[in-house]
Amino acid sequence: MNAVDPSLEASLIADWRTYPIVADLVDVKPREQALDTLWRDGRISLFHHQWLRDNCACNQCVYGVTREQLFEIVDVPEELHPQRTRIDEQGHLLIDWQDGHRSRYHPGWLRAHAYDEASRAERRAQRPQSRLWGAELGEQLPQFDYQAVMEQDDALLHWLLAVRDIGLTQLRDVPTREDVLPRLAKRISFIRESNFGVLFDVQSKADADSNAYTAFNLPLHTDLPTRELQPGLQFLHCLVNEATGGESVFVDGFAIAEALHQETPELFHLLCETPVEFRNKSRNSDYRCLAPIIALDAHGAVSEIRMGNFLRGPFDAPAERMPAFYSAYRRFIGMTREPRFRVQRRLEAGQLWCFDNRRTLHARTEFDPASGARHFKGCYVDRDELLSRIHVLQR
Amino acid sequence: MNAVDPSLEASLIADWRTYPIVADLVDVKPREQALDTLWRDGRISLFHHQWLRDNCACNQCVYGVTREQLFEIVDVPEELHPQRTRIDEQGHLLIDWQDGHRSRYHPGWLRAHAYDEASRAERRAQRPQSRLWGAELGEQLPQFDYQAVMEQDDALLHWLLAVRDIGLTQLRDVPTREDVLPRLAKRISFIRESNFGVLFDVQSKADADSNAYTAFNLPLHTDLPTRELQPGLQFLHCLVNEATGGESVFVDGFAIAEALHQETPELFHLLCETPVEFRNKSRNSDYRCLAPIIALDAHGAVSEIRMGNFLRGPFDAPAERMPAFYSAYRRFIGMTREPRFRVQRRLEAGQLWCFDNRRTLHARTEFDPASGARHFKGCYVDRDELLSRIHVLQR
Repeated sequence: MNAVDPSLEASLIADWRTYPIVADLVDVKPREQALDTLWRDGRISLFHHQWLRDNCACNQCVYGVTREQLFEIVDVPEELHPQRTRIDEQGHLLIDWQDGHRSRYHPGWLRAHAYDEASRAERRAQRPQSRLWGAELGEQLPQFDYQAVMEQDDALLHWLLAVRDIGLTQLRDVPTREDVLPRLAKRISFIRESNFGVLFDVQSKADADSNAYTAFNLPLHTDLPTRELQPGLQFLHCLVNEATGGESVFVDGFAIAEALHQETPELFHLLCETPVEFRNKSRNSDYRCLAPIIALDAHGAVSEIRMGNFLRGPFDAPAERMPAFYSAYRRFIGMTREPRFRVQRRLEAGQLWCFDNRRTLHARTEFDPASGARHFKGCYVDRDELLSRIHVLQR
Repeated sequence: MNAVDPSLEASLIADWRTYPIVADLVDVKPREQALDTLWRDGRISLFHHQWLRDNCACNQCVYGVTREQLFEIVDVPEELHPQRTRIDEQGHLLIDWQDGHRSRYHPGWLRAHAYDEASRAERRAQRPQSRLWGAELGEQLPQFDYQAVMEQDDALLHWLLAVRDIGLTQLRDVPTREDVLPRLAKRISFIRESNFGVLFDVQSKADADSNAYTAFNLPLHTDLPTRELQPGLQFLHCLVNEATGGESVFVDGFAIAEALHQETPELFHLLCETPVEFRNKSRNSDYRCLAPIIALDAHGAVSEIRMGNFLRGPFDAPAERMPAFYSAYRRFIGMTREPRFRVQRRLEAGQLWCFDNRRTLHARTEFDPASGARHFKGCYVDRDELLSRIHVLQR
């Protein structure tokens, strides 16, 4: 009578993750539209009937090969109730539904997805946190060895966590061949293409279609603010740097946003709430993106910076807001020029920057193209790919 | 004395667009932080000193080759005032600044970027509007000829405007070779790669890593809701379709959102405000994206639908919101099943769907893989690329 239908085992957890049992299920009590489940550590988690039926992982409801749902919740009535509920010998929650369907829930999975207040707060607290930095990061640059990253998964993970949480890293001892960068990027995933190509060459060009391809001083910016989704990671691989000048400069855009928030909250909010049009102007393309300079996530935390003075259209805001908006913009740019925020370093041949392009603003000081060769190879990889790779390495 | 410095002409408009003169500038009056400009048609546009100095397009401020700004507004004091302003013989606004710099503004460009209330309202009214549709679109499918689109820029533009504004189009007489789809996509721009490749093959596979690659009924969904930026356009090119079943189904997600808004605004708002985690589960990747099913733009208009029942994680919302959220989700899915919204068509060899993947939900009815071959070739192109191509074609 307690034997589990083997068909229920196939897709027990509709996922490739593992869910350790942090507490046993000790009791389950019916409520009107839901069940109250009691855990050994005293937590009570409420699960609605609809939610439970929706998340049945049996192999009728989930296709075992893809682990994707076949069942849709609208296939059963909104009032569907359990006929019988109990905790089985393995500590799983077992539900026999009114319509004869049976569902079985792994206690580790159930606890990991519980939506009582305590469980939700626990998950919020576990989200990765950005580590803000200023000029002091220049003394302790997060550096990683190219060969180790290419050959060892734990070295790869260590590097990728630094990219995610600090947003500025350097790789050392990178061979100075042109085929190296795509091989490194593919340790994470595929490369994000743009109108500048899959790989781009940062060199001074007579027919430049971007100020990046000149020898000018380039102010602190994110790349492609003109696209709805700014590239997540930017790679710059130095093949040769024999020119005078042309140092790399970085600031933590999140740290500057935070400093502005502390200093003058009203200016900070103007940068969060005023959309700016960024424009990429060329003969063959015409990208325009309207978005605020500082983006906040659903929790009100700074999640993205979008900045490129040379890629910006005229401000378009209600006239009464314009003077204050200019004050906010000036203050943000002013902060990017303050030494306390800036890491300035010359990238040498065989070194490579990898940074969070949606957080870490980068710049280049002016250089003299006549003084020697300077050639960086660049590419982008999106944040989705970084996070997916981290998830797989952490399984 | 009225001669214009030729260096001012080089980058007169820091853009590749043209700006027709819709009204002449007739007068300019100083205010404290701004100028009031009077146009022949009676409109008065206020421009702040900061805004004007910021948008100087002379070839000291803008590099003529890239048409990107070199000047940054923080390079001058916030209080910088004009020394003298006038309208010159060509009808341009001329400003001599306190610090000796001179700026000259084309009246067409100035009017196109004016931010008085009337000018801003005019621009809002000119934004492209989505044309909502239901089942009736099946009787008058927007169809386009492949050869014309490949060879004629006006046919290309005509097609792309339909993709932008209607979100569902069909191309006819497309050669059934595998190299045709990438050539068509490149008429717009490069292809958006994903973990499923640059091109993907929609066929029934034994080792499927997505339910798309099975013979099952696939409910109405957007592709890759598991990515922060869902692909903008989806292409499906039918190379062979000799199987029984497997019809294509489409609904206008914007029309359904609008209908839900009319019917029960509180359910509509729940879908706008409740983030849902979408998950793409495979052995080699682990994509997760937390976003609401209906996204609104800065003006409160529906701008995107994100839906894929088989690519969704368990709902995670405050317990008190869960029952109402299930009602909203059930109602949205219920509507996608209503005949009034559905266009159902069998795609034959030599036909191709191109649709807005962030608006138009698509589905496939179950098919019998033993009854005959069925092979669609697919790819994605992002919305940025579509809009850029349209802008260039419209210059």
